[in-house]
Amino acid sequence: MALTVEQVIMELHRTAPKPEISVDGLVEGKMDWPVTGIATVFSASHEIIQQAAELGLNLIISHEGHYYSHHTMANRSLDPVCQNKAALIHGFGAGSGAGSANSPGISIYRYHDAIHQMKPDGIMTGLLRELEWDAFVETHHPAASILRLPEIKIEAIARHIKSRLGSPFVRIVGNYTNTCKRVGVLAGYRGGGEQCIPLFHEEELDLIIAGEGPEWETPEYVRDAVAQGFTKAFMLIGHAESEQPGMKLLAETLAARYPKLPVSFLPNTPLFHLL
Amino acid sequence: MALTVEQVIMELHRTAPKPEISVDGLVEGKMDWPVTGIATVFSASHEIIQQAAELGLNLIISHEGHYYSHHTMANRSLDPVCQNKAALIHGFGAGSGAGSANSPGISIYRYHDAIHQMKPDGIMTGLLRELEWDAFVETHHPAASILRLPEIKIEAIARHIKSRLGSPFVRIVGNYTNTCKRVGVLAGYRGGGEQCIPLFHEEELDLIIAGEGPEWETPEYVRDAVAQGFTKAFMLIGHAESEQPGMKLLAETLAARYPKLPVSFLPNTPLFHLL
Repeated sequence: MALTVEQVIMELHRTAPKPEISVDGLVEGKMDWPVTGIATVFSASHEIIQQAAELGLNLIISHEGHYYSHHTMANRSLDPVCQNKAALIHGFGAGSGAGSANSPGISIYRYHDAIHQMKPDGIMTGLLRELEWDAFVETHHPAASILRLPEIKIEAIARHIKSRLGSPFVRIVGNYTNTCKRVGVLAGYRGGGEQCIPLFHEEELDLIIAGEGPEWETPEYVRDAVAQGFTKAFMLIGHAESEQPGMKLLAETLAARYPKLPVSFLPNTPLFHLL
Repeated sequence: MALTVEQVIMELHRTAPKPEISVDGLVEGKMDWPVTGIATVFSASHEIIQQAAELGLNLIISHEGHYYSHHTMANRSLDPVCQNKAALIHGFGAGSGAGSANSPGISIYRYHDAIHQMKPDGIMTGLLRELEWDAFVETHHPAASILRLPEIKIEAIARHIKSRLGSPFVRIVGNYTNTCKRVGVLAGYRGGGEQCIPLFHEEELDLIIAGEGPEWETPEYVRDAVAQGFTKAFMLIGHAESEQPGMKLLAETLAARYPKLPVSFLPNTPLFHLL
């Protein structure tokens, strides 16, 4: 009996239950389709979907929505880019390749809230492992992990992050030439003031590293902290860069669970070019 | 009779009425204090407040909130950076300099919603003037202006923006080596998918330039558009960089209105360092 999409989804939520209110769910495909292979991704972009299909991975587990919005994108059916993407996805169910009788179309499962609500957050676990920082964790809060690093220059941390995560650049505010010890790490869009600012004081942090966040909140706080003589810094490493390692770890977990099935993490290439 | 804070605020809202629901308001100081000078700023940072006081500009008109949040920051009184900033602001009312009997403390007026709701948006007017693009405007929507530029390479636009706005860098997704003609411009935090994505199609834009926006919305859309063969690009120039020129223009307007009063635009230095 072939493995179905539904069985993989049940496996995903065995250790990470689906929250009652959640964006998680099957956004393309059917529960009873047989799974020929699994791709885990940060964002199911047009190119990633083509790549998954070529590799015969007909179930894509995507952390972010594939239509450019955390919730539902308005008037999607009128947009030519969305139309082309829909045609790509639904085309695979129409007769050949991943869409043949033996291998139905591409399914996409959004897996966002459940993995974030694991204890510790499954996305954070992947990030800390990729950075080889697991051993330095002091506390896991729900949205932030507090680390005590061996004394290290912030510039060296930036180099380490760029090399381990493949980021072309990081953006930093504050004393980047200083050394630091106590570091807060927040994956994804958690760089906002409400989440980061109290941590600086309560956890006596020298540095917070976050994926993404509004420019006029935490960065302006750190600017003021430095003007007042505190040695604080804030580093934005990119939303995808901070969350991809969690999806990479998920691929390894699923590969161990389904040793006979092709399972791959497909990385998104860096989004931004600097000019 | 000395000019009061209240009189200047009435002047601010003479051409830009205060919306019924609004973040605009006097956040520091008193309505009946005499005004010795006016500083217009994007963000009333610690350093900007010191600078204004040294220049005898005791009314600061700030576009963003001075406590790192669009609304009210929770538990502000417990935070040492906020405590120091409050002490700085209230210290000027305590006896000397800007705080002497003849020159009471520093007032800060938040001027955000009213200027954005001008037709056209006063912040946009300042940005387009600073970029010397006024003549190319085709349409002003409430949150976006549509321009038809003489055919120009996107790389050349990036260089122009960096040089005119003093941005150390811009971030770009898509075909940055292409030329473009039809350009959408959105100031501030308006780079989100809901505002930008429909514009690409409806206005047949080659390029959208925005201050700031979430990484997994418009940038992922443009990545997909390019993968499908469209020539589209999206440029993020920085929240402050995109809105400061509007506050600079406001200083000129107020200087013309109050020719005997010192009125200055005080620029925030760039927030981010790239590593």
